Amino acid sequence: MRVLILGVDGYIGWALAQRLATRGLDLYGVDNFFTRRRVKEVGSDSVLPVPSIGRRLQLFRGFYGRGIKFFRGNVADPEFLYSVFKEAKPDVVYHLAEQRSAPYSMIGLKQANETMVTNLVSTINLVYAAKDVNPNVHIIKLGTMGEYGTPNIDITEGFFDIEFRGRKDTLPFPRSAGSWYHWTKVHDSNNLMFANRLWKLKITDVMQGVVYGTEIKEIEKSRLFTRFDIDEVWGTALNRFAAQAVVGLPITPYGKGEQKRGFLSLEDSISCLTIALEKPPKDGEYRVLNQFDQYYSVNYLADTVREVFRELTGKDARIKHVENPRVEAEDHYYNPDHKKLYELGYKPSGELKKDIKKIIEDLLEYEEKCKELKSVIMPRTYWRKSSGL
Amino acid sequence: MRVLILGVDGYIGWALAQRLATRGLDLYGVDNFFTRRRVKEVGSDSVLPVPSIGRRLQLFRGFYGRGIKFFRGNVADPEFLYSVFKEAKPDVVYHLAEQRSAPYSMIGLKQANETMVTNLVSTINLVYAAKDVNPNVHIIKLGTMGEYGTPNIDITEGFFDIEFRGRKDTLPFPRSAGSWYHWTKVHDSNNLMFANRLWKLKITDVMQGVVYGTEIKEIEKSRLFTRFDIDEVWGTALNRFAAQAVVGLPITPYGKGEQKRGFLSLEDSISCLTIALEKPPKDGEYRVLNQFDQYYSVNYLADTVREVFRELTGKDARIKHVENPRVEAEDHYYNPDHKKLYELGYKPSGELKKDIKKIIEDLLEYEEKCKELKSVIMPRTYWRKSSGL
Repeated sequence: MRVLILGVDGYIGWALAQRLATRGLDLYGVDNFFTRRRVKEVGSDSVLPVPSIGRRLQLFRGFYGRGIKFFRGNVADPEFLYSVFKEAKPDVVYHLAEQRSAPYSMIGLKQANETMVTNLVSTINLVYAAKDVNPNVHIIKLGTMGEYGTPNIDITEGFFDIEFRGRKDTLPFPRSAGSWYHWTKVHDSNNLMFANRLWKLKITDVMQGVVYGTEIKEIEKSRLFTRFDIDEVWGTALNRFAAQAVVGLPITPYGKGEQKRGFLSLEDSISCLTIALEKPPKDGEYRVLNQFDQYYSVNYLADTVREVFRELTGKDARIKHVENPRVEAEDHYYNPDHKKLYELGYKPSGELKKDIKKIIEDLLEYEEKCKELKSVIMPRTYWRKSSGL
Repeated sequence: MRVLILGVDGYIGWALAQRLATRGLDLYGVDNFFTRRRVKEVGSDSVLPVPSIGRRLQLFRGFYGRGIKFFRGNVADPEFLYSVFKEAKPDVVYHLAEQRSAPYSMIGLKQANETMVTNLVSTINLVYAAKDVNPNVHIIKLGTMGEYGTPNIDITEGFFDIEFRGRKDTLPFPRSAGSWYHWTKVHDSNNLMFANRLWKLKITDVMQGVVYGTEIKEIEKSRLFTRFDIDEVWGTALNRFAAQAVVGLPITPYGKGEQKRGFLSLEDSISCLTIALEKPPKDGEYRVLNQFDQYYSVNYLADTVREVFRELTGKDARIKHVENPRVEAEDHYYNPDHKKLYELGYKPSGELKKDIKKIIEDLLEYEEKCKELKSVIMPRTYWRKSSGL
């Protein structure tokens, strides 16, 4: 089976490639190093060492005994993507090649437009390349649980059966995203749903929770680290909390901290993405999977990081609630469904405290690097202050 | 009051400017002549004569005794839009400056991406310019009833009160658009809703039905025609049916022809857009108005055009159902709310048959031009055949 990973140089993509290598699949990868460049622009860097792509690919082939055929380019460039499709002839394509940071999209108008254009055009290009080059390809597209927002009703997986004024229908679950980035994922989901109606493309649209963790099983052995970001733009909640503890900064829940979100470990993210490949939708199906392990409040995560950090190091980390840079409810109902992946065989791999312990241990190993980045960890991108021209 | 019309050279924009001129408002206009150029690209042209913008503006000033301060440029260019905002300092801005053709967006990948980028970026630029230059400006944005699709339940105006699994919330009404173009309007609505949450911008998001007609009251006097398109890409259903009758082509409902859509005359469109200005939303409100007069099936409209054409000319027009180039339900439930504009004072101005008679009369006056365009009237843009690279 031929598998193409768009965004293979990224946090998810690099770990996924290692898992799929152990499955004996033929791997093709694409990246334009957008994340590497943009992370540097905000004065940050990956805490775990990320060699050049050439070196990465060489080490990968050395460890796994099979390589990744790599194409450097931008998925938002249709000519490039078509040429990759024609050469790779993928049976499965993972689309992980979008601008992935909510704060980045909120820096200002330039970043808002860049995120809109990069993300939407890449997905439009992908569905056209699929229908023209291989209409049977299974598209696995990374979306986010953030598409749904925090409605006062249960969240379903993509669609819901609704009764309204005495009539019934099955309709897309209403989305209420919280940043330009999150909205691009909603727009993508809508565009994918429509592409499926047009051409019966086989699509899995993954509504992923917030991912935490430094490693997966394969990385424990290969030591071919995936990137790990801890700054306020590119680092996500739990990963950043662990880094705050390690460098001696306060752990910073935003606002009241009673925001609840679905979370999952990197190990589980990769397992679920592999299940999506191994258990594909029916031909012509557009399938939405809510991909997370459990949901937690931000306060609970902050407390747990503090507790694990104390157990591990004997040191105390402070928790400091800071002004919420985002525009979001800070205390709300939250009950999203996540049955489908369990039905397909997903078994959560770890437990939160053990996973956090592992993150902190890895960060302590790279403590110097964490400290170098101390100045970019605390929030400074305020949604409402997003700059104009 | 200072009013800025983005897309002032278009079908709606040019008529709206004439109505607002009679209201004694200070008018500012923007256009980049995208529609003029793209209409020519498909081998078509406006049936009613449209002079150069310079001549148009001169005649406008001559007739109304007040001019439109005009800026040539692209709303998708943020620097241009900011400079216009700084000079015009609008109290109200109409955003009619998007790519407006569903078939155009479905020609192929290039047009799909062009429509996505042009439309989304123009609206993002607009909300940033508003919040930076005049956060009190009232944004009146043209969307489409097509955002909702044809669900099996009643359609509300933007939001609906929902009960699901025993809990309640008010959520955005789920959208199910039927072309890339229509989806850009959904994405815009979502982005506008979010901009309102960010910066409390005052926004009216107009879900407009299909507009028909050649004139409004002011144009009857001024003879400053707005453009009128009859080709398969840029002409809409009823307008095109009238042209088909006039040039001796069959009237072509797509498929079964039982598709129902909300329609309104150009006169009513302009009245409603003026009401939106005169009865603004509250400060900080994001308001959605469903803007149409009545809903009809395509078959009913075809029959009515045929009937009026016979009464007027004594000649018979054939009706021929053709293969549906679109991807849409051809027989479905349809019951959209449209109460809010009536509550604000909207009174439909005409009756369908009289309006159709007027269109046919105008087209007969320009019969030669209609006949020149005969070869581009019949459908040839097939949704499922949208071309790739």
